[in-house]
Amino acid sequence: MPDSFSPTCLDNIRAILSDLPEPDADALATTRARDLELTKPRGSLGRLEAFAEHLAGWQGASPPRMDRPHCIVFAGNHGVAAQGVSAFPAEVTQQMVGNFQTGGAAINQLCRTHGTALDVIPIRLDHPTADFTQGPAMSEADTIDAFTTGMRAVNPKASVLALGEMGIANTTSAAAICLALYGETAEFWTGPGTGVEGAAYQNKIRVVGEGVAANHRQLADGLHVLRCLGGRELAAIAGAIVAARLLYVPVLLDGFICSAAAATLESVRPGALDHCLMAHVSAEPGHRLLVERLKKQPMFDLGMRLGEASGAALAIGVLQAAVNCHADMATFAEAAVSGQA
Amino acid sequence: MPDSFSPTCLDNIRAILSDLPEPDADALATTRARDLELTKPRGSLGRLEAFAEHLAGWQGASPPRMDRPHCIVFAGNHGVAAQGVSAFPAEVTQQMVGNFQTGGAAINQLCRTHGTALDVIPIRLDHPTADFTQGPAMSEADTIDAFTTGMRAVNPKASVLALGEMGIANTTSAAAICLALYGETAEFWTGPGTGVEGAAYQNKIRVVGEGVAANHRQLADGLHVLRCLGGRELAAIAGAIVAARLLYVPVLLDGFICSAAAATLESVRPGALDHCLMAHVSAEPGHRLLVERLKKQPMFDLGMRLGEASGAALAIGVLQAAVNCHADMATFAEAAVSGQA
Repeated sequence: MPDSFSPTCLDNIRAILSDLPEPDADALATTRARDLELTKPRGSLGRLEAFAEHLAGWQGASPPRMDRPHCIVFAGNHGVAAQGVSAFPAEVTQQMVGNFQTGGAAINQLCRTHGTALDVIPIRLDHPTADFTQGPAMSEADTIDAFTTGMRAVNPKASVLALGEMGIANTTSAAAICLALYGETAEFWTGPGTGVEGAAYQNKIRVVGEGVAANHRQLADGLHVLRCLGGRELAAIAGAIVAARLLYVPVLLDGFICSAAAATLESVRPGALDHCLMAHVSAEPGHRLLVERLKKQPMFDLGMRLGEASGAALAIGVLQAAVNCHADMATFAEAAVSGQA
Repeated sequence: MPDSFSPTCLDNIRAILSDLPEPDADALATTRARDLELTKPRGSLGRLEAFAEHLAGWQGASPPRMDRPHCIVFAGNHGVAAQGVSAFPAEVTQQMVGNFQTGGAAINQLCRTHGTALDVIPIRLDHPTADFTQGPAMSEADTIDAFTTGMRAVNPKASVLALGEMGIANTTSAAAICLALYGETAEFWTGPGTGVEGAAYQNKIRVVGEGVAANHRQLADGLHVLRCLGGRELAAIAGAIVAARLLYVPVLLDGFICSAAAATLESVRPGALDHCLMAHVSAEPGHRLLVERLKKQPMFDLGMRLGEASGAALAIGVLQAAVNCHADMATFAEAAVSGQA
């Protein structure tokens, strides 16, 4: 295990972010050249061609491969749940982890559909983070602990890593992170999550605003935002994104919470998410706004808002299709098909 | 084989279209009721929930199934190709059929990715349709022959049918069909197809306009539009769509050409495409305009413009995911997860 997988303070993480690997230029060039020879009009597979290139560059392999897709769902509990920001009680985090472990959740079916290995990693569910309307959600040590848990969960042999989360109240955390990183208003970033409305929705907006206000002197950069307003599963997602970059494993980001965790890295080091594809845009309104800030183009828009890596896992089927076309189509010469005039 | 699968004239087809089956109400109701019990916030799987409902209703089965996806690519040659409307020579139709048959094309990889059975059906490639700038592309007998070929190709045991085509010059045919059905101008409906530009693109616009003008006295309804401006593969797609409806097989439509063939049915009988999902919106500009006319919401928008059922075949992975979630997720009661407050 390289030392870079055991940061002991936020400064260590900043140092890693300052020296990230770039995509493999040879793999990119080989992939682009082969694409031009395949039996189709140039460009006619649209973004499937770009996905194959992305995977090749960030795997450092041409042709790219999709034989070992991996999905990780991190789970954490949030002290801010006590503020009544969710339509579901806090014990649902643990109950849903049980559901993941016995194979009954959506993410289980989605992973099975495309042959994706699934790991579910609950992080200290019996120790919720602190209520961030009263101060930082986590200490630096807690943040590092969760971040490192995320780093170590990445399988270096994975073809792609789909990331997601479970944590009652974590759209509140994501909205607060976005407000801290990008400004605007609490209302701008706050949505219904699993289904709050009316007075409960107004209360959620209040909590998001109070969270940022209560911590504003400590929000010096994205990692402090992650510490003060995030949660254990968000810190773990951030760690997994960084480790995947170091290990040449491309990443699929899921919805609002996953993307908010990712955004804390991008704010510290622009380009930190270059190895990540945005699987989808969620129906949670803040996600569309965040996707724009991150300058990502979602692979699809199907009105999903479940979290638990569901959008990212669905996108794996599209990446498999892209790679199979790139790797296995005949060339014009092989198939004796006349080329473009 | 029921008599309705052997129409002998366009009037027979009109009679079939006037008496199409509707979705199975019991299967729809059972599917909707089960969806509410699954361990997720209501509505949180977005359009995946609607896809499961669509399949249940049009299969007449709850839970719906996706164990036997089927894809058919029909191929035909077009006399109008002699007008220089394509970036590729006409012999590419036959060459690509050979590529499909030996497994080298994109559609082969896309079908393999999701376990879809693929049938490739070339229709009289050595007899191109007539050049429609000089009069009707097909006689009524030719149209019926191709339409019936399409009907007979449908496997009644298929879970879903993905439809597509191959035929050099057939975006010209599709543009002419749209101009005849919806008006506007030839330029409005004409795009680059496989890649014409400049003077060749202007020529293509001219050909589309001349085709509609040369046939305008015969374009009495959608089936005559299909006969005069379509092609054998387009008529076969129309036939397959109708047979699938009769056999309770839901359909995935592909891009511009496939949708133009489908549109001729919708113009004769509004609702004729209710059992069809629009897999994607193609980069061919006319497709987005046509999708709006058909009031369909594409499943994704990935800039694809290859035809050969590529978008429809890609969508099968999404439908498999939708069905697996619906059929196999645990209920709140089974998983002992607390429900929404």
